[in-house]
Amino acid sequence: MAADALPRTRLFIDQPLSPGGVAALDGDRAHYLRAVLRQGPGDGVLAFNGRDGEFLAHIETLSKSVGTLRMDRQTRCPANDAPPAPWLLFAPLKGGRTEYVVEKAVELGVGRLVPVFTRRGDVNRVNIDRLRANALEAAEQCERLDAPDVADGIDLQKLLSDWDPARTLFVAAESGVAQPLVTAVTASAGKPVAFLVGPEGGFDQQELDALRRLPFVVSVGLGPRVLRADTAAFSALAVWQAAGGDWRSADGDARPPNRT
Amino acid sequence: MAADALPRTRLFIDQPLSPGGVAALDGDRAHYLRAVLRQGPGDGVLAFNGRDGEFLAHIETLSKSVGTLRMDRQTRCPANDAPPAPWLLFAPLKGGRTEYVVEKAVELGVGRLVPVFTRRGDVNRVNIDRLRANALEAAEQCERLDAPDVADGIDLQKLLSDWDPARTLFVAAESGVAQPLVTAVTASAGKPVAFLVGPEGGFDQQELDALRRLPFVVSVGLGPRVLRADTAAFSALAVWQAAGGDWRSADGDARPPNRT
Repeated sequence: MAADALPRTRLFIDQPLSPGGVAALDGDRAHYLRAVLRQGPGDGVLAFNGRDGEFLAHIETLSKSVGTLRMDRQTRCPANDAPPAPWLLFAPLKGGRTEYVVEKAVELGVGRLVPVFTRRGDVNRVNIDRLRANALEAAEQCERLDAPDVADGIDLQKLLSDWDPARTLFVAAESGVAQPLVTAVTASAGKPVAFLVGPEGGFDQQELDALRRLPFVVSVGLGPRVLRADTAAFSALAVWQAAGGDWRSADGDARPPNRT
Repeated sequence: MAADALPRTRLFIDQPLSPGGVAALDGDRAHYLRAVLRQGPGDGVLAFNGRDGEFLAHIETLSKSVGTLRMDRQTRCPANDAPPAPWLLFAPLKGGRTEYVVEKAVELGVGRLVPVFTRRGDVNRVNIDRLRANALEAAEQCERLDAPDVADGIDLQKLLSDWDPARTLFVAAESGVAQPLVTAVTASAGKPVAFLVGPEGGFDQQELDALRRLPFVVSVGLGPRVLRADTAAFSALAVWQAAGGDWRSADGDARPPNRT
């Protein structure tokens, strides 16, 4: 079967996947296949679980809220040699912009998403289940082999006090001296990193002072214009992937490189 | 007056601006100041026109649909030495994503926005007046000194037949061999460039073949994941600014550098 004849439907299935094996569909996915996509037994899908690569499968059974997939063959191997994926720590935003940040961050290869509550943030709670569903959906669509973690929301101070100092924390600078983003991320290629983006109102002075005192924090500059928080978040991730991550391969073929 | 005490309201005023001079407010801006922001004579605003820098001004007169601003002093000089701004050519998208692309592209310093109609595009007309208003609003908010041009929509073939070959046209590759984005844009720093991003359904084969034959076209790769069209658009612009544009200055201070 040619690569372009693979099914367009792609599902994250959190179960072991192997050639010939069977995986159960949960209620949401069974409903999605049957009622939204109007699919039934025999129709093909692609399945991935973040560990075993990707499989061409077909629907074996499907009823209203349950179903099973049978794996036919492996279509992509696990990406065991993938560089460490960057994390994104972000203050939740108003008006659907949080969902947009999640979608874009997943496409841009984020490994972990952490909602962070700050003093000037204007959103003080998030619906984590919804963000996790957004992240899975984006992972299914962008042909990732894994789905990023979406952590529970956490206060900035608590997050910083438990931080692993081996992971560089880039903070999008709103003022003061900072390294150009491309310089900072190029120097961190292949190392564990995270980006912290504050709320639209910015960090307050105490938060900025606390951040600057931490040895693992690097302030990065995102140019002379004032960026909205969502723009800063995915600009940082895009520049990371381009200059320090997995967009650097000489063959810029946009198809998944390990499709078999 | 300290820089942080400048007024938050910032307006694009398409008239000559000079110290002591007066500029007329159009109906929309007079209404916005009076009815939305509840401002009146004596209140301060910042004004810019894309040519004369930025001025601190105050409202001299204001009624329902007319008004005048008096310029008090220049707050920023014209950015005469700015590198050429990249252009973005994009197939219009559904569901508010076009407006989002415009907002982000303006924040990311685009010089010209061109809606492009392609064979597989699922939006065949755009409201140019609305896009121009979106672009002005984003320019006002992100502290740019200019507002980008928003061109009328144009068919891809016509656009390419009239293209100035001195301007490199980067095309986000969906398949085939392509240069890594960061390599391509670093090599084009300081030169006129444009990015072309297709519709969600991609370019069709004839369009791709036509693009590849053009000497000014460079295919660029945006990594192993499948990006949505909006993600590709602002990722390309962010990487351009970071690696080839105005995010490279050693002082990453995010405040406008030429604020006086």
